[in-house]
Amino acid sequence: MNPTRTIAEFVVEARDLPPVAIDEAKRTLVNVLAISISASEHPSSKRFIEWARAEGATERSTVIGSDLRTSPRTAAEVNGFLAHLQDYDDTHFPTILHPSAPVWPAVLAAAEERGANGLQALSAFALGEEVACRLALSVHPWHYDMGWHITGTTGVVGAAAGAGRVLGLDADRMVNALGIAGTQAGGIREVFGTDAKPMHAAKAAGNGYQAAAFASLGLNAAPDIIGGRRGFWAVLSPNGHNEAALVEHLGSHWELTQNGLKPYANGVVSHPIQDGVIRLRNEHGLRPEQVAKIEARGNPLIVELMNRPEPKTGLDGKFSFQHCAAAALVDGAGHDAQFSDARVADPVIAALRSKVSAITDPAIPEHEVYVTITLTDGREVSTHVEHASGSPENPLTDDVLDTKFRALVEPVYGPARASQLLDVARNLEGAANLSELLRLAAR
Amino acid sequence: MNPTRTIAEFVVEARDLPPVAIDEAKRTLVNVLAISISASEHPSSKRFIEWARAEGATERSTVIGSDLRTSPRTAAEVNGFLAHLQDYDDTHFPTILHPSAPVWPAVLAAAEERGANGLQALSAFALGEEVACRLALSVHPWHYDMGWHITGTTGVVGAAAGAGRVLGLDADRMVNALGIAGTQAGGIREVFGTDAKPMHAAKAAGNGYQAAAFASLGLNAAPDIIGGRRGFWAVLSPNGHNEAALVEHLGSHWELTQNGLKPYANGVVSHPIQDGVIRLRNEHGLRPEQVAKIEARGNPLIVELMNRPEPKTGLDGKFSFQHCAAAALVDGAGHDAQFSDARVADPVIAALRSKVSAITDPAIPEHEVYVTITLTDGREVSTHVEHASGSPENPLTDDVLDTKFRALVEPVYGPARASQLLDVARNLEGAANLSELLRLAAR
Repeated sequence: MNPTRTIAEFVVEARDLPPVAIDEAKRTLVNVLAISISASEHPSSKRFIEWARAEGATERSTVIGSDLRTSPRTAAEVNGFLAHLQDYDDTHFPTILHPSAPVWPAVLAAAEERGANGLQALSAFALGEEVACRLALSVHPWHYDMGWHITGTTGVVGAAAGAGRVLGLDADRMVNALGIAGTQAGGIREVFGTDAKPMHAAKAAGNGYQAAAFASLGLNAAPDIIGGRRGFWAVLSPNGHNEAALVEHLGSHWELTQNGLKPYANGVVSHPIQDGVIRLRNEHGLRPEQVAKIEARGNPLIVELMNRPEPKTGLDGKFSFQHCAAAALVDGAGHDAQFSDARVADPVIAALRSKVSAITDPAIPEHEVYVTITLTDGREVSTHVEHASGSPENPLTDDVLDTKFRALVEPVYGPARASQLLDVARNLEGAANLSELLRLAAR
Repeated sequence: MNPTRTIAEFVVEARDLPPVAIDEAKRTLVNVLAISISASEHPSSKRFIEWARAEGATERSTVIGSDLRTSPRTAAEVNGFLAHLQDYDDTHFPTILHPSAPVWPAVLAAAEERGANGLQALSAFALGEEVACRLALSVHPWHYDMGWHITGTTGVVGAAAGAGRVLGLDADRMVNALGIAGTQAGGIREVFGTDAKPMHAAKAAGNGYQAAAFASLGLNAAPDIIGGRRGFWAVLSPNGHNEAALVEHLGSHWELTQNGLKPYANGVVSHPIQDGVIRLRNEHGLRPEQVAKIEARGNPLIVELMNRPEPKTGLDGKFSFQHCAAAALVDGAGHDAQFSDARVADPVIAALRSKVSAITDPAIPEHEVYVTITLTDGREVSTHVEHASGSPENPLTDDVLDTKFRALVEPVYGPARASQLLDVARNLEGAANLSELLRLAAR
């Protein structure tokens, strides 16, 4: 039994993916294009692109939201950074993996290089995503609990799988691609809330692409990077792993169906709170000056990952459940606009943040929350969110996703080009190549 | 107490390094140039360089042993691969870290970019090496025992420190460089014996350089990547760490003095065996047909890391204590020539390999071994190696190092150019920049 080879053969041999996989690939592409174009305006993105421009390269590959053309590896890195910078990407709910940010950029780089058609690119992404989600599930919760950022560690393996599929690797070379990628698995949670967090997705995308390219040139690695004695499971998840989650029912069960798209541009564990606050705000017409207290009762991860009562920057605010709840009450939303430095410094929101608290209960799952708002007149209003919007049980509709796309892309490219790009992405399975998509995605 | 900041301040503020540090930097440079030039002839190196050439780049940086000029990050990657490919680089004996392969390429890339002088480059390397050695010591043996390749994981942090020193980072930015690098720490032992092992050094060098460059552009990371709650110690060495080894007596105790240069082109744990076999061979004039049995009594790592009774390739042979011992008896050496595919397939060596065995005893330290050779006439000869040649207690002399340099470089560049390059490296502290050194090191 060699689980790495099982995965490699699945990725190499899969034919005619089911509509649920192709549709997932298209929806995540719409989402990743929107958030990446929006993120290209951020100062950290501009620094990364400035560095890539100075590196120079044969101009083979598109950087989203930029006029830079560069090498496939460097393009994959920049695009990975853009896709994860604003924490507005997708989430595999069982594991909190964000699969698109590492996998899509690696697949786009390989697909542009090889002139792959739309269906080939969508299929390769779906297979890479499936590998990342299953590898993540096979080490959850032990791996994340140790302190690993699962998006970096399993993302690089999914990125190699997706890029390797486009490059047409055979099973032996796919095993090498997964091996070269898997031994580079990295990214720790200590850097959450800094530029180094999206760097995990950047490097997973670039290293995953590079691993596939190296394997195609004949470089080798271990025969079983996942299950070997000193492999991924043993070293990066010593407290436990679940082999069945990785290899059982490949091609019949699709773990990618457990991936969801975010309605809010921040850490996913506070999404149920934002749903609840916005619901109560809208139902009762609440204004900030009426609120004495906002209390959320939910999973301990809310406090473990997002307890920042006094965030200083917009990025900090994305990891503050207090800010997320306060901004949701004041603005009724959690888009990028709610996570600017100015919005975090706003005195009305800051005052309201100090009135937000959480009571944690391990019996309450991550997707659920009870929100109670106490008003200054003594009244209490409360609500129960069973499944956050954007979760697999309560997915964004295509219409809501299109609205998110326009909200993020129109300020950068204007409504006409936003519509064109959305239209091309929504019909990608019929495209002969990715040229039109990438021309519209670049600046 | 923030150990990351302590290290960052040391690297930024150190002035007038002692001769022991500068001399170590020069000796490791002579060694790394020799092994990299030799390694540039290897098919795997040619594939890596072919890939880098296709990536393309602004031609800012030298690739050793090649006519390729590329970007600093890509040059650091290729040079890291070359420096570690043949397992002929240096070894920090307390931890089995190989510090030069990740650190020198990052320092060279930054120094060429900035026009640093020889003394600045040597000082930056020594500081980067000191950081890598101390970080390695702070997690040894727990980290390596878990399955981590310590050269990749601590090397990237040392590479960022060395490159960041050349780039003139202040302490705040040095903390960010160490953070961006530290969260990328990776490389697992599962891939030993494959192309993915030198890839660890390659990526540590490239990622370390890139981390320093990103920090210089203002990108940030966590304030304490090493000691933080979800930092390097907690996540990559959960079974233990030793803070004092990282931060005590910085600038007075130099851990880099515990680094040694290899007399043999293979895994270091079998070096004492090779010393013993060659000593007995030369003292008793032993020929292969006289030998019935070669028995080594030593540390269990011999078997754990290098038990490959039937290696198939030259690279395999480097991780086979049986092959190392057999080749030492037949050829009296352990240079690259003893690790060709042809030499591994040689019937005399193969027959002798089957007569090599090891008895392990945890009470015997890694640098020590007892070798007994039983002859076909029934006689036994034996010897005790207390400290392997190339160890800190028994270092290579400058003359032996120069001989190794010539043995590796002359077949590639000829004796005249080898002498020129050696001369420039041996006098680097007086050079106004690295142009001459790198011109001679390139093809």
